[in-house]
Amino acid sequence: MRETMIGLVKEVRGPGAVLREVPIPHCGPDEVLVKIKATSICGTDVHIYKWDDWAESAVVTPNVFGHEFAGVVEEIGSQVTNVKVGDHVSAEGHIVCGVCKACRTGNAHVCPNTVSFGITAPGCFTEYAVVKASNVIHNRPDMPFELACLQDPLGNAVQTVLSGEIVGKSVVVIGTGPIGLMAVAVAKASGAGVVIAVDINSYRLSLAKQMGADYIINSREESMVSAIRAYTDGEGAEVVLEMSGYPDAIRGGFEAAASAARVSLLGIPTQEVPLDLSRHIIFKGLRIEGITGRRMYQTWYQLKGLLDQKRIDLKPLITHTFSLNDYEKAFELMISGQCGKIVFLHDTEIQLPSMKECAIHG
Amino acid sequence: MRETMIGLVKEVRGPGAVLREVPIPHCGPDEVLVKIKATSICGTDVHIYKWDDWAESAVVTPNVFGHEFAGVVEEIGSQVTNVKVGDHVSAEGHIVCGVCKACRTGNAHVCPNTVSFGITAPGCFTEYAVVKASNVIHNRPDMPFELACLQDPLGNAVQTVLSGEIVGKSVVVIGTGPIGLMAVAVAKASGAGVVIAVDINSYRLSLAKQMGADYIINSREESMVSAIRAYTDGEGAEVVLEMSGYPDAIRGGFEAAASAARVSLLGIPTQEVPLDLSRHIIFKGLRIEGITGRRMYQTWYQLKGLLDQKRIDLKPLITHTFSLNDYEKAFELMISGQCGKIVFLHDTEIQLPSMKECAIHG
Amino acid sequence: MRETMIGLVKEVRGPGAVLREVPIPHCGPDEVLVKIKATSICGTDVHIYKWDDWAESAVVTPNVFGHEFAGVVEEIGSQVTNVKVGDHVSAEGHIVCGVCKACRTGNAHVCPNTVSFGITAPGCFTEYAVVKASNVIHNRPDMPFELACLQDPLGNAVQTVLSGEIVGKSVVVIGTGPIGLMAVAVAKASGAGVVIAVDINSYRLSLAKQMGADYIINSREESMVSAIRAYTDGEGAEVVLEMSGYPDAIRGGFEAAASAARVSLLGIPTQEVPLDLSRHIIFKGLRIEGITGRRMYQTWYQLKGLLDQKRIDLKPLITHTFSLNDYEKAFELMISGQCGKIVFLHDTEIQLPSMKECAIHG
Amino acid sequence: MRETMIGLVKEVRGPGAVLREVPIPHCGPDEVLVKIKATSICGTDVHIYKWDDWAESAVVTPNVFGHEFAGVVEEIGSQVTNVKVGDHVSAEGHIVCGVCKACRTGNAHVCPNTVSFGITAPGCFTEYAVVKASNVIHNRPDMPFELACLQDPLGNAVQTVLSGEIVGKSVVVIGTGPIGLMAVAVAKASGAGVVIAVDINSYRLSLAKQMGADYIINSREESMVSAIRAYTDGEGAEVVLEMSGYPDAIRGGFEAAASAARVSLLGIPTQEVPLDLSRHIIFKGLRIEGITGRRMYQTWYQLKGLLDQKRIDLKPLITHTFSLNDYEKAFELMISGQCGKIVFLHDTEIQLPSMKECAIHG
Repeated sequence: MRETMIGLVKEVRGPGAVLREVPIPHCGPDEVLVKIKATSICGTDVHIYKWDDWAESAVVTPNVFGHEFAGVVEEIGSQVTNVKVGDHVSAEGHIVCGVCKACRTGNAHVCPNTVSFGITAPGCFTEYAVVKASNVIHNRPDMPFELACLQDPLGNAVQTVLSGEIVGKSVVVIGTGPIGLMAVAVAKASGAGVVIAVDINSYRLSLAKQMGADYIINSREESMVSAIRAYTDGEGAEVVLEMSGYPDAIRGGFEAAASAARVSLLGIPTQEVPLDLSRHIIFKGLRIEGITGRRMYQTWYQLKGLLDQKRIDLKPLITHTFSLNDYEKAFELMISGQCGKIVFLHDTEIQLPSMKECAIHG
Repeated sequence: MRETMIGLVKEVRGPGAVLREVPIPHCGPDEVLVKIKATSICGTDVHIYKWDDWAESAVVTPNVFGHEFAGVVEEIGSQVTNVKVGDHVSAEGHIVCGVCKACRTGNAHVCPNTVSFGITAPGCFTEYAVVKASNVIHNRPDMPFELACLQDPLGNAVQTVLSGEIVGKSVVVIGTGPIGLMAVAVAKASGAGVVIAVDINSYRLSLAKQMGADYIINSREESMVSAIRAYTDGEGAEVVLEMSGYPDAIRGGFEAAASAARVSLLGIPTQEVPLDLSRHIIFKGLRIEGITGRRMYQTWYQLKGLLDQKRIDLKPLITHTFSLNDYEKAFELMISGQCGKIVFLHDTEIQLPSMKECAIHG
Repeated sequence: MRETMIGLVKEVRGPGAVLREVPIPHCGPDEVLVKIKATSICGTDVHIYKWDDWAESAVVTPNVFGHEFAGVVEEIGSQVTNVKVGDHVSAEGHIVCGVCKACRTGNAHVCPNTVSFGITAPGCFTEYAVVKASNVIHNRPDMPFELACLQDPLGNAVQTVLSGEIVGKSVVVIGTGPIGLMAVAVAKASGAGVVIAVDINSYRLSLAKQMGADYIINSREESMVSAIRAYTDGEGAEVVLEMSGYPDAIRGGFEAAASAARVSLLGIPTQEVPLDLSRHIIFKGLRIEGITGRRMYQTWYQLKGLLDQKRIDLKPLITHTFSLNDYEKAFELMISGQCGKIVFLHDTEIQLPSMKECAIHG
Repeated sequence: MRETMIGLVKEVRGPGAVLREVPIPHCGPDEVLVKIKATSICGTDVHIYKWDDWAESAVVTPNVFGHEFAGVVEEIGSQVTNVKVGDHVSAEGHIVCGVCKACRTGNAHVCPNTVSFGITAPGCFTEYAVVKASNVIHNRPDMPFELACLQDPLGNAVQTVLSGEIVGKSVVVIGTGPIGLMAVAVAKASGAGVVIAVDINSYRLSLAKQMGADYIINSREESMVSAIRAYTDGEGAEVVLEMSGYPDAIRGGFEAAASAARVSLLGIPTQEVPLDLSRHIIFKGLRIEGITGRRMYQTWYQLKGLLDQKRIDLKPLITHTFSLNDYEKAFELMISGQCGKIVFLHDTEIQLPSMKECAIHG
């Protein structure tokens, strides 16, 4: 087997990324080596690509990034019993210690010793990746790779939607980025009552409609709070899923929440947010859930049931596919917001820029 | 207004029922009078009609029976503030005391002081009925009466399905009477993984398919336990909804349950059932829920969200409609099991037998 | 029977209150008349006495105020079945509609149609009060009245402590006013691990010790966040009960919370509070509960079990008792903060100021 | 270091056990070697000692048995990071695979690939034992070994008591073997209302009193069901903890349960138990929990909080201590039922029978 491969590498601690030759990783005794078939771009990857304060504080360089993938197992470590060569797999990207209190009490998603695939450890925007056998998720062989690679962010959506009761309840999804769009579909598939999507991006609001939103609100064009009340018989939303991270949207979400509502916060504001705790949280008796990652691994089994039985259809969400060779176009499109989920299909040979130039000029 | 009306009355403490002239009930200060538009036959009504041990112990005679209905409010009592004349309504049939410990702690469905509409108090197989304003459920004016009258049994199904987690889980519904059929639809609409229906009645199993079952098992033709294991990758079902009441089916349900499964029991066995508690419940770490009635009123709001947003479609379930004049045919059909839900449309004039005879002979 | 009695009346919409002759209230068909035996001063009563923005917006005048009481039933309405003359009782002070969605789904504590005993309806700082039979709580005849009147605020404490898991968990109570002090006792009686109390009032911190706090922190003398970490092996508190309402304390509470902690907010800030949602709530995966009132009536049954079996002892909390005649002294003491719970014993005759003067001058 | 040690070995597949020389186990890379300081006898050990059908089906021979222990770490494997030499430790005895669905969804206690310390793998009735680092529980150095070794069965009690709500509720513990006695203490420490203990063994009933039971019932002398109703104001028990495994006791427990009660089943009947599902479970709306093992590892943290803060005192439960040399006496006493928990103190040298004989005859 070859010793090296080509990967999309975050090399300098600044904007951009490069395709480069890197060693094919070695598979340890409790690990598996996966041939990558499809990957997708997470908002986190955009932060790494653009390089912001969070990236500066959290990302290891140089590193192959990317963490949402589907592939086929090429090799397994000597102690691995739960995975076979040839298995179709994805993986949970949080590599946790397994022995701390958080890990031992169902809260592995906040393990303080977490190593992150594609952020602090080599990731998947490349040909091969190594993952812990304990983190492997098995995919049905008949599930297309481009759908299977979406399970990681789908997990965030599932975790957010199902962090409280949902059946028959009025739900508002604030922020229709890819995870928000998935949340619309998950809410509907999980028996939500009316599902309302809010954004300022009309391209994505129309995707929200396709994913099953009963109503959409462009909060640049109408008052989010008034519109939510209007669509919920004046009561406000019983479930608010905040996926934008914008302070005004967050505050509006609390205001638009019904009494005894649940507000789940996934979007990450970059500054402090002043909240009227008395009027919007205490007197209304709200429950708030901070959402980070996914329940390991309950969430994966929940989404697997939904996907395997076709309770949700993620296809409309994949608005664009690229070869990894065209990563710059892909990231620019992602930054523009005029897309749903962008998938890299790894079925064409990844080429170094020099090779591409040769090809072009040749 | 007229002083009397014609109602289907359980008169003698034995099989059968008769259409008879009865007084139109008087609406008390905290009650409302409803013009009945559609009703449906519950299994309980069949027990009353056929007259069995349970009926002998629980039913008041003479009494207009029937408790599943939809109608329009004709009159409201002097203290009523939550209902208006002209409202489209149904009602929760358990009239509870409101002040006992059960009522005060979210367990009104087991209030020891319950009076039951259509069982120990006058019911709805007639032209007008009186219900407590506190028990009224508002229906959207655009919901057809024949669907709205099904909310009471739908509530039993919702209560059973949602008495534990459901999203992504493998579900088996044992017994596909009307509530079992509804449970199939509710499970699917609530995000269940694979949904399996079991019965010995092939007519109803084909209805189960229409209501959304992924697999059906005729337990007369194949082993229920083996088939459930086969459809769940050998694990057994993560959620078992027992709606048959048959001892062998109950025992099979426990055997077919996966470890850490939930088993919800709605079907009512008429004798003691020997269970292997050690092997099937304790070592597997099962949770069991005894289901009676509906959560008052959480369940009603859950099902309202599902119905109003068309997450479930009950139409295929209504296999037959009758005029109340043809009650004998309707009950015979119900007893035969060759039907789904039978609805009485109250839009034709109900006639006394003598009047019918006149009409026939005239 | 007499037609009038003497009550502590909020007469003018400004500071203070007066003892005045008022009519003995009439007992409606679903109500009971109670001879008041003991009452206690709630923080809310202090707001009414001092008159602040909240009072201006929420309080009806003129009105007998006070809502925490214990007494003996003197008369029952014609429809009352759950209460007898001579019963020892207290009452839930939120008089709710019973038919709205909140009331029907276990959220009566946020019923939008609530009338509040002692705030928008006549209360208990007097000789007799009328309460809805549905709101009556039965006390054991052997429970001293001065303890029984504390059940209402104890309910707030129970609701706060038990709004999530508690057994074995590290708990910090921020703010040791009367409800905070009760929360210390409830947490300990409910199996909490280490219980830490925080305040700036050393009198109350020493009461917190008496109520069972394992550690106390005077946040004026040491860093609350560091001290909490020190007492929790560096992890932070798994349960934060915020009962102060001070923005800095609230922010400190979120910072001192462990990953996956629960933060329950009871204290009512009078201004917006800027929160670092990302770092303190989302990345830590916190759950937050806004607490208002009590679960009707689960909380009452929980506290009844604790009190009846003597799992908690509220006696150390009653630092002072007064006659209602000395209400001014009592309120001044309450405002000073140099007290625990102040109880009015209604066993001496309440006198009009003029009568007192007569007595003094006579 | 020595190569061999003396251990209590189950050698033949029949009654009894022998002290024998066995190799000191080797510590693998993810394991730790523990010097055993104290152990206790579980009911399971009695089954192994006496040899019954369960033992025949489940136990590996020859094997050092015993699984409840406390000790000090003597050596750690090369990959171990969470344990140090010198740490005071106990361990969870279920060695699970970590990668199956049960393990990944919070249900490791029903992992189908479980290996059991002291049952299918070498245990602790000896000088040294090897345990997985992942299974190690850290004890405070100031916790006496004879108390620390009781945490395993205490975990079963905690799991049973806390498998539903407990604060303020009436609780009945049926069967006051060691785990039942612990359950009495845990229920009380967790805020239970009235706690009632039932058995036919008056020695253990008096221990139940010492552990905090408010009432005891000798079901040989009075009707259990009537007595429970009498102690619960006629309602029945809101929480039934079944720890006897006797069919009549189980049936009585269901009969004595209040409406909407929770029944947790830990005791293991050896035959099928006929239950009146309709009357006792369905119409009453009961919840039943099958309890096996402990939640890994939530339960350990719950009990640690209770023990470390001295919310429960297990000392009265240790009625007898022995040297392992006197194992026969210890097992006979355990079989007699005239004891609480029996602890082996490993501070005297364990001797082979031949050595003992030498000593005796010497």
